[in-house]
Amino acid sequence: MKRLVVDMDGVLADVYSQFIKKHHEESGEWLSIDTMAGLYEGEVFPYARKHINTKGFFEDIPVMAHSQEVLAELIKHYKVYIVSAAMEFPLSLSEKQQWLDRHFPFISWRQRVFCGSKEIIRADIMIDDYLRNLDSFEGETYLFTQPHNSLIESDRHKRVKDWLEIKSILLP
Amino acid sequence: MKRLVVDMDGVLADVYSQFIKKHHEESGEWLSIDTMAGLYEGEVFPYARKHINTKGFFEDIPVMAHSQEVLAELIKHYKVYIVSAAMEFPLSLSEKQQWLDRHFPFISWRQRVFCGSKEIIRADIMIDDYLRNLDSFEGETYLFTQPHNSLIESDRHKRVKDWLEIKSILLP
Repeated sequence: MKRLVVDMDGVLADVYSQFIKKHHEESGEWLSIDTMAGLYEGEVFPYARKHINTKGFFEDIPVMAHSQEVLAELIKHYKVYIVSAAMEFPLSLSEKQQWLDRHFPFISWRQRVFCGSKEIIRADIMIDDYLRNLDSFEGETYLFTQPHNSLIESDRHKRVKDWLEIKSILLP
Repeated sequence: MKRLVVDMDGVLADVYSQFIKKHHEESGEWLSIDTMAGLYEGEVFPYARKHINTKGFFEDIPVMAHSQEVLAELIKHYKVYIVSAAMEFPLSLSEKQQWLDRHFPFISWRQRVFCGSKEIIRADIMIDDYLRNLDSFEGETYLFTQPHNSLIESDRHKRVKDWLEIKSILLP
């Protein structure tokens, strides 16, 4: 069984939607995701660092569309690991655990990894929205489309625009 | 620079000492570590699972002798990662972060990994007290002596009895 590493923020968890919501709560302003192509979260959301370091930010992040149903199928064909670069944000650790318990209860604690850097992760396939994680990975790589990476053209990593595209590629 | 993966419980953190102390607080009885050869923690300490799931267990675990001074030298010669199979015990995540911040402040969050299984960890050298972690690792392996593994003879993994021995082997 091939080992499949799946990122959390920006792949399973819809962080842009959460930032947009938190930005609205903070400022009363609704930002449109259509204006964010090619920009990192910190460039778009002036309170990004404050919000990400506030208790509760990771607790109710929306689930990425179709990720639950597709991942529930993928675990029948792959050894799936959720690997999140969570160490930078200490508050996030328990919130992320609880979020996975709630939305992905079929991914046990045995299949979860919280790390600082992903450069010591070994598996066959990786799905991630950040090039810095995919670049150091030795296996097959999929760049999950998010605003910040949407203008990048990569020869090395295949782009997937959503979970339905992952389904069509990785499931029989 | 070679990548060196160091386990936490039973290598940096002296869990047997902590179990002995917690057992004494629970029962008034002092257990001697000399009677524990070849036995897992759960076989020696009847309240092991209760204690490990109690808030505070990981907070004040004693630091393994000489681990701080040796690791402070090792980071000059290796890219060091602390990799702990912490996911089974959700309470432990933030306590372990704080414990590392306190006793190993020179190991940044970038060099820390909390996982369920270590089978997806890739590096050059691993120091661990559990065979199940060393067996799936592709690099050079060191079995750190703890009571539960003290009777095991392994051809595949080199045994190290303490941090001074690690120093003599891995430092110039």
